[in-house]
Amino acid sequence: MTGSRDDRDRLRVAVVGCGYWGKNLARNFATSPYSMLTWAVDADEERAERVARGTGATVAAHVERVLDDQSVDAVAIATPAHTHLDIAMAALLAGKHVLVEKPIASSVEDGIAMVRAAAAAGLTLMVDHTFCYTPAVQKIRDVVREGVLGDLLFVDSVRINLGLVQPDVDVLWDLAPHDLSILDYVLPDGFKPLAVAAHGADPIGAGKACVAYLTLTLPHGSIAHAHVNWLSPTKVRTTIIGGSKRTLIWDDLNPSQRLCIYDRGVDLEYDPTQIAAEARTAAMVSYRSGDMIAPALPEREALGEVIREFAASVREGRPPATDGQAGLRVLDLLDAASRSMAFHGATVPLRGLR
Amino acid sequence: MTGSRDDRDRLRVAVVGCGYWGKNLARNFATSPYSMLTWAVDADEERAERVARGTGATVAAHVERVLDDQSVDAVAIATPAHTHLDIAMAALLAGKHVLVEKPIASSVEDGIAMVRAAAAAGLTLMVDHTFCYTPAVQKIRDVVREGVLGDLLFVDSVRINLGLVQPDVDVLWDLAPHDLSILDYVLPDGFKPLAVAAHGADPIGAGKACVAYLTLTLPHGSIAHAHVNWLSPTKVRTTIIGGSKRTLIWDDLNPSQRLCIYDRGVDLEYDPTQIAAEARTAAMVSYRSGDMIAPALPEREALGEVIREFAASVREGRPPATDGQAGLRVLDLLDAASRSMAFHGATVPLRGLR
Amino acid sequence: MTGSRDDRDRLRVAVVGCGYWGKNLARNFATSPYSMLTWAVDADEERAERVARGTGATVAAHVERVLDDQSVDAVAIATPAHTHLDIAMAALLAGKHVLVEKPIASSVEDGIAMVRAAAAAGLTLMVDHTFCYTPAVQKIRDVVREGVLGDLLFVDSVRINLGLVQPDVDVLWDLAPHDLSILDYVLPDGFKPLAVAAHGADPIGAGKACVAYLTLTLPHGSIAHAHVNWLSPTKVRTTIIGGSKRTLIWDDLNPSQRLCIYDRGVDLEYDPTQIAAEARTAAMVSYRSGDMIAPALPEREALGEVIREFAASVREGRPPATDGQAGLRVLDLLDAASRSMAFHGATVPLRGLR
Amino acid sequence: MTGSRDDRDRLRVAVVGCGYWGKNLARNFATSPYSMLTWAVDADEERAERVARGTGATVAAHVERVLDDQSVDAVAIATPAHTHLDIAMAALLAGKHVLVEKPIASSVEDGIAMVRAAAAAGLTLMVDHTFCYTPAVQKIRDVVREGVLGDLLFVDSVRINLGLVQPDVDVLWDLAPHDLSILDYVLPDGFKPLAVAAHGADPIGAGKACVAYLTLTLPHGSIAHAHVNWLSPTKVRTTIIGGSKRTLIWDDLNPSQRLCIYDRGVDLEYDPTQIAAEARTAAMVSYRSGDMIAPALPEREALGEVIREFAASVREGRPPATDGQAGLRVLDLLDAASRSMAFHGATVPLRGLR
Repeated sequence: MTGSRDDRDRLRVAVVGCGYWGKNLARNFATSPYSMLTWAVDADEERAERVARGTGATVAAHVERVLDDQSVDAVAIATPAHTHLDIAMAALLAGKHVLVEKPIASSVEDGIAMVRAAAAAGLTLMVDHTFCYTPAVQKIRDVVREGVLGDLLFVDSVRINLGLVQPDVDVLWDLAPHDLSILDYVLPDGFKPLAVAAHGADPIGAGKACVAYLTLTLPHGSIAHAHVNWLSPTKVRTTIIGGSKRTLIWDDLNPSQRLCIYDRGVDLEYDPTQIAAEARTAAMVSYRSGDMIAPALPEREALGEVIREFAASVREGRPPATDGQAGLRVLDLLDAASRSMAFHGATVPLRGLR
Repeated sequence: MTGSRDDRDRLRVAVVGCGYWGKNLARNFATSPYSMLTWAVDADEERAERVARGTGATVAAHVERVLDDQSVDAVAIATPAHTHLDIAMAALLAGKHVLVEKPIASSVEDGIAMVRAAAAAGLTLMVDHTFCYTPAVQKIRDVVREGVLGDLLFVDSVRINLGLVQPDVDVLWDLAPHDLSILDYVLPDGFKPLAVAAHGADPIGAGKACVAYLTLTLPHGSIAHAHVNWLSPTKVRTTIIGGSKRTLIWDDLNPSQRLCIYDRGVDLEYDPTQIAAEARTAAMVSYRSGDMIAPALPEREALGEVIREFAASVREGRPPATDGQAGLRVLDLLDAASRSMAFHGATVPLRGLR
Repeated sequence: MTGSRDDRDRLRVAVVGCGYWGKNLARNFATSPYSMLTWAVDADEERAERVARGTGATVAAHVERVLDDQSVDAVAIATPAHTHLDIAMAALLAGKHVLVEKPIASSVEDGIAMVRAAAAAGLTLMVDHTFCYTPAVQKIRDVVREGVLGDLLFVDSVRINLGLVQPDVDVLWDLAPHDLSILDYVLPDGFKPLAVAAHGADPIGAGKACVAYLTLTLPHGSIAHAHVNWLSPTKVRTTIIGGSKRTLIWDDLNPSQRLCIYDRGVDLEYDPTQIAAEARTAAMVSYRSGDMIAPALPEREALGEVIREFAASVREGRPPATDGQAGLRVLDLLDAASRSMAFHGATVPLRGLR
Repeated sequence: MTGSRDDRDRLRVAVVGCGYWGKNLARNFATSPYSMLTWAVDADEERAERVARGTGATVAAHVERVLDDQSVDAVAIATPAHTHLDIAMAALLAGKHVLVEKPIASSVEDGIAMVRAAAAAGLTLMVDHTFCYTPAVQKIRDVVREGVLGDLLFVDSVRINLGLVQPDVDVLWDLAPHDLSILDYVLPDGFKPLAVAAHGADPIGAGKACVAYLTLTLPHGSIAHAHVNWLSPTKVRTTIIGGSKRTLIWDDLNPSQRLCIYDRGVDLEYDPTQIAAEARTAAMVSYRSGDMIAPALPEREALGEVIREFAASVREGRPPATDGQAGLRVLDLLDAASRSMAFHGATVPLRGLR
């Protein structure tokens, strides 16, 4: 793209944590026209070195050295969730902007502390909800928010495959963050979940849920639901967003037709001479059957867009599209879902974080 | 087939209720080698006449005339659910075997009364769970019960489409009976649901749930789940039955490959030197990736098989495959699901009907 | 629809030949608001009686009785192809309009005679190219002729399945008439095939081709191709119509998305300063990637439309959409294809029938 | 795998031509346990340097320097086809084994010269028919050759997409080598094509065929056919191999079910009391409908297998699986297809190369 961008305009970034995802982040920071990789940090210095190779970045075993470096603009944190709080707070105190992996923290309280600290310091705190930066989700957000679908009726998401049974988290915390962060991103402002219920099962005796179902109560009688599963022999990645005017289906495994917008649905026509209670039963039900459109989507790597947004939000002093608040909202849903699951799927009303 | 079957061997049947399904039943009773249609009964006699035409059956507006006819062996009831009790009890009292549409009755108490009355009279009471008699479900039952899948881990069923919003029942009572009767039929004896939770939504203001999710707690940590939905622009009819050895996927809309049995899955290998609590975390997780087999299925009409089974159970004096108990179990699940839905998805433990 | 249509407005039709397709035709003539079935003719009178039952039609073993009946408006011929000439000529001489099954005759010469006779008598001669009256093909014709696709580049059709090996015809004459009649119907006027080549194989020793490939040379460098096959274990019914602006794909086995119109393609941009020969190589190739639209199609039975068109063409004294000329063009292509197949796929230039 | 393989056992390879495919080859030679990359050669030395970086290979602008290096075992040629002859002959004269990109040469005569030279020198000449080394094609070869399908009846291949219009070759030479090399690889010994016909079209005025159909006459009445196309908006990669016992379908774009083996088909049963001519028409046709099996396939990169086979054939002094003869056979088919296309699809009998 704009490979000729002046180096002084680029965000100077330190990546902390050089595991699977940290390596990806580092590579993208190193090659993005919007950033430079200046430090690669990992307690395992060999790992950090492998990541730094050929990028010009310096290697460190501890984040302290990075925080002392006045030339570093931002810290990207790709360490385990329970370490996010300490690293992020230190970085913010040192005046660095922060990009943090999801979930933003291992408890809602920690997350709140991070968000407040960033606000107080006037620094950017962004959560890496990568999926929100894919062309498909960007398009879905536009479609939903521009009212193409009409009022939202239901969201149904299926994310199942023969998955790696994770050592530290259950299937809910492994897979549902994708669905929840996408939902948070595309739902209109103010149209946020009111309550959560979750049912899980561990039929193979893995010591944690391997199959889970998540139900979100949305405003105006709407509902959202997600099925996450590590035990399915076939892979499914499908989300249906039903609206009063149109319905969108996203099949992420169908590259030639990822999004379909159906102009089909059920219409209720109320008799205006009827009053309240009777109106419902007097409603005429009719069915629409119109065209389907599969919009063309650009080919773009999501992580490149994450970095572009991070750099832009820092430069422009504005909150990023997936800011700390978004991270908190997702964390709050996960936390409530876990509590629901422990209580046989009891519906847990949400407080509504501010 | 055995078109030359002697008329004296055939079950002489009266069909009561000549609406959409009654007409189907009547046509099948009239043409089956195992039965004859002798009466067509409907309060709307014209409707009854249309059904009787060309079959040799006599028409009646009321069931009383049928019950007086000593030559009638059995009554098939295809009237609305709230009328099942009265008609079935009268038929049983008159010494007629009974085939009744699902749901068996409109309340669990009514259903119990019918089951007890049939038992007392030594007559057959069969519920028309038609889907159980399709070649696909027959094969699934065999596969599950012969242990081809190993231990059952989870069942996930999706039955969604742009459906007719029914005037009298919600989406749960309209569509879930199919999933529940199939589940009841294929699950091994003794492996029955322990509890139910259901979440529903009426986002279009139809006055009843148009989208619903049903979660069943099964023994040994297993789970079953069904998604039923009238608002989806595309039709889906898929059931996954995950087992410890193999997993079966039934896609009823894929005629060339309705059933697939995958030899893929997650294996846990416990270290026998470890004890209890630690054993779990010490378990080695491994993944199998074997062949998939799509078994050939015969082409057979389910309703013909329903009648064959009804006639055989009468002839042999044995309970039919989908007897009154099966009908009661399905009704009990539906009833518990409705109660759960009214209480925000609270998990409702089942009593276990006997 | 217009069930109240006055009987005097309805076309009075005799169906000759009461086999599989004749039965279908008869049923449709009997129930269409545009026609009445007045005779059912078959050498096997029992077969004719089964077809006539309940329709009010008279039964005959020979067509002569029908031709003497002044009240008969039209004769629909569903007998084997080699009998079409005699029956059609007699019917036309007796002043009856004619609807004839495909192929119109068993030789081009016979077909020409029929077309000339109908023209001389001022009577309608229509060929039952049923597929042309499906909602999908109607839509394709509109799309092609309104220029939505731009210039036609290629047509590729696949019609394969585990088919009944026919006793009297090879796979070309069994299946390709569908593709050829559809092609004839949708191609713009004047844009007709120039030459035909066909390759066949009889690998199972059935005594006739069971697999065949048909290549049509179209004007302006375009090409059409059809694959017909009785030996495929899976069924495929797909046609791609590639255009300079858009490309249409028709998958007849995908009811939820039968037609897809892709706004994708290859563009050549010529440098106007270059002359002739060099211009080509200097052309800039570019690629378009736009939306896909799957238009909604009405649910309508094709045979009902065939009858509506037949009745309308008689009433209005105009050629039907699939007139004798269309039947001749298809027959000419089949005949040329058979000759090509006998000569190792030699390209057979067409004469162009008038 | 066996990363600890002793360096002295590894094949020392020079890659000549560092374009798109040469880069791939070089990377694989450098990382394979069976080889080392010792030279990267390209007239554009910068390109060679990029390829050599980090591999320890020396860079050269001309192949002469490589040929003088006694330590080089083999030369891999990834330059344009018209240069293959000169480079390969020089390499063979210098005692180097040769791996050459497809097509083996730009004329059959050149190819023959290369094959003879390698034979005379007792050196390995392998053609890089990469697709033959994919797990899918390996499995297909086994299935075909072990008789799982019975006698081969037909092969139908479709390889279409919105393709890059190539500057130097038409769609036949761009895409059909894949189908032809795969066919050559999987067909049983002795069961080789007897004749070729090809039809092409250039409807966009690109100066070369953009759509082509290729028909191969196989022994015993069998047929093979390929459709290659640069103008299709959707991508298809499907091959059907029909056999007398079973039929295999390979859909390379369906990763979860790449191969399906159907136990379905048409059977002819001859009446043994009938003789020759009559037997055919007296044959009873019957239809089998059995299970479908989708065999599990390993995940393996094809290019790694190419190198393993090249190294093994050198080490063991045996012809590689895709030797010069295979390359010649494919070239001969392409050449005959081009001649056929220039003569309106005339069937070109093959000489049968030895």
